[in-house]
Amino acid sequence: MNFFVRINMSELKVSFEEVPEKYKKMGGRWLTSQFIYNEVPPTCHPLGPSNKLIFAPGILTGTTAPCSGRISVGSKSPLTGGIKESNAGTPVAQALAKIGIKAIIVEGQPKEKDKFWIVRLSREGGKLESARGLMGIGLYEFAKCVKERFGKVGFIAIGPAGEKRLPIAGVCFNDKDGRPCRYAARGGLGAVMGAKGLKAIIVEDTNTSPVTVVNQALFRDGQRKLVEALREHHMTKPGGLLNTYGMNFLIKVLNEIGALPTRNFSAGRFEGANKISGKVIVETIKQRNGNGTTSHPCHPGCIIRCGIIWPRPNGFEHVSSLDYESVWALGANCGIDDIDAIAELIWICNDGGLDTIEAGVTLGVAMEAGLIPFGDIQGAIRLLRECIQGTLLGRVLGNGAAFAGRLFGVTRVPVVKGQGMPGYDPRVVKGLGVTYMTSPMGADHTAGYTTATEIFGIGGKVNPLSPKGKAELSRDFQAITAFVDATGYCLFILFAVLDIPSGFEGMIETCNGALGTKWTSDEVMAIGEEILKIERSFNEAAGFTKAEDRPPEFMRYEALPPHNQVYDVTDEELDKVFGEL
Amino acid sequence: MNFFVRINMSELKVSFEEVPEKYKKMGGRWLTSQFIYNEVPPTCHPLGPSNKLIFAPGILTGTTAPCSGRISVGSKSPLTGGIKESNAGTPVAQALAKIGIKAIIVEGQPKEKDKFWIVRLSREGGKLESARGLMGIGLYEFAKCVKERFGKVGFIAIGPAGEKRLPIAGVCFNDKDGRPCRYAARGGLGAVMGAKGLKAIIVEDTNTSPVTVVNQALFRDGQRKLVEALREHHMTKPGGLLNTYGMNFLIKVLNEIGALPTRNFSAGRFEGANKISGKVIVETIKQRNGNGTTSHPCHPGCIIRCGIIWPRPNGFEHVSSLDYESVWALGANCGIDDIDAIAELIWICNDGGLDTIEAGVTLGVAMEAGLIPFGDIQGAIRLLRECIQGTLLGRVLGNGAAFAGRLFGVTRVPVVKGQGMPGYDPRVVKGLGVTYMTSPMGADHTAGYTTATEIFGIGGKVNPLSPKGKAELSRDFQAITAFVDATGYCLFILFAVLDIPSGFEGMIETCNGALGTKWTSDEVMAIGEEILKIERSFNEAAGFTKAEDRPPEFMRYEALPPHNQVYDVTDEELDKVFGEL
Repeated sequence: MNFFVRINMSELKVSFEEVPEKYKKMGGRWLTSQFIYNEVPPTCHPLGPSNKLIFAPGILTGTTAPCSGRISVGSKSPLTGGIKESNAGTPVAQALAKIGIKAIIVEGQPKEKDKFWIVRLSREGGKLESARGLMGIGLYEFAKCVKERFGKVGFIAIGPAGEKRLPIAGVCFNDKDGRPCRYAARGGLGAVMGAKGLKAIIVEDTNTSPVTVVNQALFRDGQRKLVEALREHHMTKPGGLLNTYGMNFLIKVLNEIGALPTRNFSAGRFEGANKISGKVIVETIKQRNGNGTTSHPCHPGCIIRCGIIWPRPNGFEHVSSLDYESVWALGANCGIDDIDAIAELIWICNDGGLDTIEAGVTLGVAMEAGLIPFGDIQGAIRLLRECIQGTLLGRVLGNGAAFAGRLFGVTRVPVVKGQGMPGYDPRVVKGLGVTYMTSPMGADHTAGYTTATEIFGIGGKVNPLSPKGKAELSRDFQAITAFVDATGYCLFILFAVLDIPSGFEGMIETCNGALGTKWTSDEVMAIGEEILKIERSFNEAAGFTKAEDRPPEFMRYEALPPHNQVYDVTDEELDKVFGEL
Repeated sequence: MNFFVRINMSELKVSFEEVPEKYKKMGGRWLTSQFIYNEVPPTCHPLGPSNKLIFAPGILTGTTAPCSGRISVGSKSPLTGGIKESNAGTPVAQALAKIGIKAIIVEGQPKEKDKFWIVRLSREGGKLESARGLMGIGLYEFAKCVKERFGKVGFIAIGPAGEKRLPIAGVCFNDKDGRPCRYAARGGLGAVMGAKGLKAIIVEDTNTSPVTVVNQALFRDGQRKLVEALREHHMTKPGGLLNTYGMNFLIKVLNEIGALPTRNFSAGRFEGANKISGKVIVETIKQRNGNGTTSHPCHPGCIIRCGIIWPRPNGFEHVSSLDYESVWALGANCGIDDIDAIAELIWICNDGGLDTIEAGVTLGVAMEAGLIPFGDIQGAIRLLRECIQGTLLGRVLGNGAAFAGRLFGVTRVPVVKGQGMPGYDPRVVKGLGVTYMTSPMGADHTAGYTTATEIFGIGGKVNPLSPKGKAELSRDFQAITAFVDATGYCLFILFAVLDIPSGFEGMIETCNGALGTKWTSDEVMAIGEEILKIERSFNEAAGFTKAEDRPPEFMRYEALPPHNQVYDVTDEELDKVFGEL
């Protein structure tokens, strides 16, 4: 039996309610976006009482389907002003699903602005308690306190940045070993949680039951096909690229093709790239030969295992996880080529509850403005700490790259819809640029990762530098991604699924098996399109138009070395992406 | 013979060119808005090279028509992100018209970011010179330097805030005695001028010729009618309300009806109102009996003379002018009830080149956030000085109320389209609220001053508290205002013109006389509507939708004491305003 948990922060009440019929087949992003579309006034203040924060495990989360332990967090974003879904892989997602929780809805706002609460959730119900003793500390310390106070539980939490309602703040989940390092990072959802006065949700997963699977035979069939595809594809197989390097192999690849955004998107190649490459990361871990490891899963049941636990020079664990986006954002984009320094910056982000991408892009803009020089490690550390402390400068930076850019009067500000761009310069990877510009989420590589085709040759092969056909490519990727984000599957299954037809079948069959549906591949794409459509509708009602589906102006006239390309996908092409939706 | 002056800051070139046929009958806001609509890419960065800054005296500016010495400044606003027109009354407007300059167009951007220039303009031509020696000083000092260096000339200049590209910066013009106190203040046009590297335009008005009037007889007839109406109406006549108190009589009036925004729009009555009322201002000036005066004109030929020169206790001049909006914004809205302190805050704004309204609204938000307490005079002085110095906090505040509100996580932020609201709470003066919400300019009382009818009973009488019929009222006011802003007339002529039919005739006949046109009153309204239409179109292309025509959310649920009214003009009513345009 599934239910919704409604946490009303105005009345300080937690209630369990039946899942309305219309939401029963939904999960993940599908559910969060539909819910926001239905219940959040599009023009409300993102940090006011009318906004809601929704957590929803995917359709398959909690089942034995491989790599299906993701949870979506949805809200109106204080960073973009539009709808937001950001997801994370974490055992908490699986625990909630096994408790029977289809979604958690946080709504309202406490009268007392400075009082924070935690909610304890279990099969037995939910209750609010004061967050006293857990406030103002870093998330590593928080995780320790939680363990001491509640034992081995899962948590959903914000760090000091979220407590301060900074739009750079993400929502943090524990990984399978209890580290506070799995983030629904983007769009400032941590600030929304902070504005709700909710420090954390503590999830006790005792006495749970298996997640319902309507057609076991079909499900198992699909699961087998998907597992086989994942174990076969060069990106996802054991010992494959992801398993060995995470996505960090991209540092070298993107640097070679001149698409690695360097020093605030002023160049496409970084002279320090070979000091922070995937190969160097893996070799250094081996040399240090201590508690570092590659091939770490973010949740049980992941067979790709792209996580990387980085050790200090003495072999002791430093931080998990060294993902490409973080390494790029806090590395090349800031002109920093020292992996230990980058690891420390990631640790600070994890501890303070910051989105590493927005943090890195904002630091890049601050460096551009001359606040500190590019490459200044100690300066970068100091600025991130100021975010967490909430000093005036920290609040400026904690409001993200677009905000800081305006403050400093900088015009080279790599954002779309107010959200900082991830680590692929759109002037070189033009299809991904279309995703940046047109995704309802703002600049977001995970919203339609055309890089798969443009760089890796997955599902076909196209020239990344050419603007041709990129509207269609991005639209297809955005649609299938929206569906995948509904399932609880990790986006990375797409590499195998798009190249291996039986893998694609497996993805759909596991869903059909679990739900008792008979979705075809066309219907699956239609679901993805439907999700995008409601997201776009919300944004439209919130005031978004085609003008928000545009690159920052400088990318139209500033050619990126070494290819000296501007962003030349035309406005008309950009408008074609959702012209038919 | 009229011409355009084009100042190309990329090439550092000044050229005079013939006025294209299509612009020949236009002036003021009509010309600036049409020009921006035609030549500025709507999605460009307001501080980048593609934006343009246009100066245009009105159709009648430089003629003997009464109160016609206004000049419009237009651009894409860095404060609102939309089109902007802001105008000022100044002899510079008249000088430009007499030189034959129909508009000045500033475009491009110098390569060297930190180098500033001045342009010297006269009948003989224009030339660029380095702004060395004029930078970084206050505008009072600047005015002295200009006088020493160039003699008795007019100037258009930015202060330190504009040099720093802060969206709180206005464009400053001298008054008839050379004071740097006449501002096209709103929308951050000073920041655009700063981004162009243009410190000032120096206007030498020797060897000028009278402005062409095609039909002298008709013009003189119209002029007579308008002068008579102005001399008859209780608002505009000699010894009338405006001539005696400026608009400061509003402090008492609005306080009594509970519409005086107090302490960041948290109340509609200010307990200190009777310490800063128009009556107290006038009586204090009389007591101090020195260089203060009421009844000061901003330009020769003004017969209303609403300006007030405030003296220090010792009788020496302190600041000009004590206008209602400034007294309210830096007074009641900040909980400050000391006129000498308010005068000093206005002086600081004039000296630094700040919009007094945006400054006061931003201070209100900063006080709300607890940065300094309400009523803290020394704190307010310090914060404004920080703006001018461009400290980090100064840059935060210098980006205006909406920006500061986001930084501090405050939800009570009285802005529309990112621009701070003037001194009438829309929850009580609901028609003016419609203007705030729907004007293409953002929250702006001068864009459609329905207060005339709602409070003064001019052109009819309606209940300010009722939402009924306010869409139509605001639309009509916005249309006639757009026309008036094209003529060079001061908006205050509307009081007489709307009550006295021959005054209305006079307004149109002076235009027809000057241009040789045969505009009817319907055509005049149609011109106003046409101006609004192109402004709305620009904004739409820049990404504005109905969602930008909304009150800040808190005004929908926070009732304003003492009337305990929320803003209850419905979204549907708001959308009716321009539904037909």
